[in-house]
Amino acid sequence: MPDQTTPIGVLREAMRAFVAERHWEQFHSPKNLAMALVAEAAELMEHFLWMENAESRTVLSDPVRRERVCDEIADVLGVCLALCNALDLDLSDVFLRKMSKNVLKYPVEKARGKYRLEG
Amino acid sequence: MPDQTTPIGVLREAMRAFVAERHWEQFHSPKNLAMALVAEAAELMEHFLWMENAESRTVLSDPVRRERVCDEIADVLGVCLALCNALDLDLSDVFLRKMSKNVLKYPVEKARGKYRLEG
Amino acid sequence: MPDQTTPIGVLREAMRAFVAERHWEQFHSPKNLAMALVAEAAELMEHFLWMENAESRTVLSDPVRRERVCDEIADVLGVCLALCNALDLDLSDVFLRKMSKNVLKYPVEKARGKYRLEG
Amino acid sequence: MPDQTTPIGVLREAMRAFVAERHWEQFHSPKNLAMALVAEAAELMEHFLWMENAESRTVLSDPVRRERVCDEIADVLGVCLALCNALDLDLSDVFLRKMSKNVLKYPVEKARGKYRLEG
Repeated sequence: MPDQTTPIGVLREAMRAFVAERHWEQFHSPKNLAMALVAEAAELMEHFLWMENAESRTVLSDPVRRERVCDEIADVLGVCLALCNALDLDLSDVFLRKMSKNVLKYPVEKARGKYRLEG
Repeated sequence: MPDQTTPIGVLREAMRAFVAERHWEQFHSPKNLAMALVAEAAELMEHFLWMENAESRTVLSDPVRRERVCDEIADVLGVCLALCNALDLDLSDVFLRKMSKNVLKYPVEKARGKYRLEG
Repeated sequence: MPDQTTPIGVLREAMRAFVAERHWEQFHSPKNLAMALVAEAAELMEHFLWMENAESRTVLSDPVRRERVCDEIADVLGVCLALCNALDLDLSDVFLRKMSKNVLKYPVEKARGKYRLEG
Repeated sequence: MPDQTTPIGVLREAMRAFVAERHWEQFHSPKNLAMALVAEAAELMEHFLWMENAESRTVLSDPVRRERVCDEIADVLGVCLALCNALDLDLSDVFLRKMSKNVLKYPVEKARGKYRLEG
């Protein structure tokens, strides 16, 4: 399982080199990349557009859909990495600090089994 | 720099435990997570909404905005990881395979310096 | 029922005057307005984020949610009108021409009861 | 100019008939329609993705792009109308009430020429 051993930095470097070879840093403003992130996430979402939730859980059993969904997820991560490259942010650090906030924001006893907390 | 040494799997496991403790797997259908991904990406995008591209490149110099933008990026990654957990996908593998396709889709000689390739 | 008698042009003019009084035309590039449209639509979508489809059909029975959902729908239309104002497009004309295409694209016999047509 | 004389209700009725003939009301939960609205808005936004704001103002001068942008705007309005049909909301009423709130929220003296008001 590559996720067990692959550091984020390896994926970031793959994206950085891809962008640099094409001289695309000029287009990679945070504004443009945030737009691209939404656009890629929306393309992913379209695969689940008119389904019930239950059907969406089985979508990978169809190999054609599986490949498309995987490609869209990859595109989302790719733009996220390009944004961290453009802003010179450490994504692991940013993520783990936010998770610490989330633990406080959603205490287990209050949040368990609920998707919406009372004010 | 944590990104140099932190495997994706460590971040995935942090998200998996957070979700499991709150019994939120029931809400984490691919459909719902794809919606959440778009919603988080849109919140990130809103920080850059009425700006010119040039202004968006300097947004991290303001510490208040910096923290908000970092938190939104973390939320995007968090949902992306939760989606891979729900679908049992290896994100590194998915990403690197898509990058191989991108290299073929955007040949350096044709793509260099252009954001749109002629049909 | 105001929709029976209110021309689109009346709503467009309300938005035009609102924008002009605040000297906001300078920010209303099509790029920015398209971003704002997505951002407003995403805020609307968030109200339905973790629900089943069935629950979302009853959301207006709660007066607090009703008002919020109505306000988000209004914001979506508002940005759509501002975009037509910025681009000098007649929205009724644009809409009815697209509906003619949709009728051809989704023939009744093939599309009835299906949300996805076979290639 | 059709917008001067076409009531919203006429456009709503065109959408209602189109949906009813295809038996699509079953898919038109508010949740699904809100997702579709974001998806259509994101497709519109993609036309302006890597541009500067200034370039986006001239996009209609290219006839091919013009037709695509118009079609995307029509799709956004179409989903917005379908959502009002599904929720039995009067869109003109919803819009004009929200505009009254906006006038109070963005007083002319404070909002003029600024896209962000100080807290």
